[in-house]
Amino acid sequence: MSDNRYIGVFDSGIGGLTVVKSIVECMPGENIIYFGDTAHVPYGTRSKRQITEYVLADVRFLRTFDIKAVVIACNTADSVAKEKVREVNPDLPVFGVVDPASRLAAVSTKNGRIGVIATNATVKTGAYERAIAKYNEDATVFMEACPLLVPLVENGRFRPGDPVIEIVLKEYLEPLVEKNIDTLVLGCTHYPLLQEAITHLYPSLNVISSSDAAAAKMLGTLIQNGTCNENTEAAQSERKYFVSDDAEGVDNLARVFMGDELGGTFRQVDVE
Amino acid sequence: MSDNRYIGVFDSGIGGLTVVKSIVECMPGENIIYFGDTAHVPYGTRSKRQITEYVLADVRFLRTFDIKAVVIACNTADSVAKEKVREVNPDLPVFGVVDPASRLAAVSTKNGRIGVIATNATVKTGAYERAIAKYNEDATVFMEACPLLVPLVENGRFRPGDPVIEIVLKEYLEPLVEKNIDTLVLGCTHYPLLQEAITHLYPSLNVISSSDAAAAKMLGTLIQNGTCNENTEAAQSERKYFVSDDAEGVDNLARVFMGDELGGTFRQVDVE
Repeated sequence: MSDNRYIGVFDSGIGGLTVVKSIVECMPGENIIYFGDTAHVPYGTRSKRQITEYVLADVRFLRTFDIKAVVIACNTADSVAKEKVREVNPDLPVFGVVDPASRLAAVSTKNGRIGVIATNATVKTGAYERAIAKYNEDATVFMEACPLLVPLVENGRFRPGDPVIEIVLKEYLEPLVEKNIDTLVLGCTHYPLLQEAITHLYPSLNVISSSDAAAAKMLGTLIQNGTCNENTEAAQSERKYFVSDDAEGVDNLARVFMGDELGGTFRQVDVE
Repeated sequence: MSDNRYIGVFDSGIGGLTVVKSIVECMPGENIIYFGDTAHVPYGTRSKRQITEYVLADVRFLRTFDIKAVVIACNTADSVAKEKVREVNPDLPVFGVVDPASRLAAVSTKNGRIGVIATNATVKTGAYERAIAKYNEDATVFMEACPLLVPLVENGRFRPGDPVIEIVLKEYLEPLVEKNIDTLVLGCTHYPLLQEAITHLYPSLNVISSSDAAAAKMLGTLIQNGTCNENTEAAQSERKYFVSDDAEGVDNLARVFMGDELGGTFRQVDVE
């Protein structure tokens, strides 16, 4: 039996598209609704109460479509509001990005030393330390806030060999490498675009993308629940993209994240 | 007669502090209220209607103090909403940043070729082309959007010799230099911090800071109207700083802009 309902994915902006990309890679036939709450980006600087309100509104919007699961594709929103989303939507499978990446890092580290790079806001929540400890209480976690990586990625500066991204990455990563980490979690949905540049600089690191980990976790659950879409052709899947602020220029930025796999265009929608 | 009332200065964030710094440099004894609407930063991606609403609320907040003038220390807000602010506040001298810098560039260029660097949002408004044409209809204006400069400045990467800022500045400025400009307007309140790095790379350019130009324009008007503060000691002046979102961390960022001249700390305030 095929479950053709949509998978809902949302983020404060368009970084969450890396989760869509990961979902498309492992489940190309699934129908997807994406919502970027660009009227309120970035969530990281808002209060917890305010973030929770925005996140619940995001999910309400996604539920105006017939969705079978939702991914909170934003590390800040996930850390702050996932439990509330589950409480308000007890019938809906809710996935985050922090927990799947933390589990993968916790079980795959050889020396128990894990680095996590993230935005200031995510670092402050302490969510990765808590989640990793849940799966491996002996692991030592080193957090590094990397405020320049999001603007650099959004301006297309993420490719191996770009001198700017290489200088900035080295400054952020060198302190972690000096701590002898063997595993690095990309704790922001923008960062999977940097995976190649990071591996180029530090080829021996075990690099874990929170977007890939979230998609893999969802695939496992859909299989377990028998709610996969039997279609496996991307060409026959449906993708709908929305933002809450002006959609002008968003398609171009979105293509930085997904290239030709985008398969749709963004529309503006008012969400309350 | 001394006019001890405050000068009000506001911006969507804290970039407008470069205007405060310029005011302090030429009028150290003036009392100043600064408001950064950080709950709604950045204005650049919002609609004109939304920006105008925010700007009018910003001015209403500043007017809860006894102010003798207001500076719209944000290029986007100035371009979009200055006329409306004047209409709603006919009794208040209202200064922007675009007009004073444009006038200065228009009258000081030798070859009539002027470059302007700004954010995407300010470039789109076309405000600099219009303002420069008003003062010098023969001038040719070349605009360059520089989306990476604000995050680089806010992360402290603005000093001459920093390889990251030098690479990025060269990429943005080379096309303008190739157009044979002799004058460069820093059309964003964050950019005065880059003046030294730019002069280091292009020593022959006539570099005009919109923040300095706005402060000079205001000084002229205060003198003309006889509304200067007779006090000329910074130590005896009063500075009040407010933001509309969480004030945590703002003082540190503010010190990037003003160093020890800040002379105050930020408080959070709700503005409707």
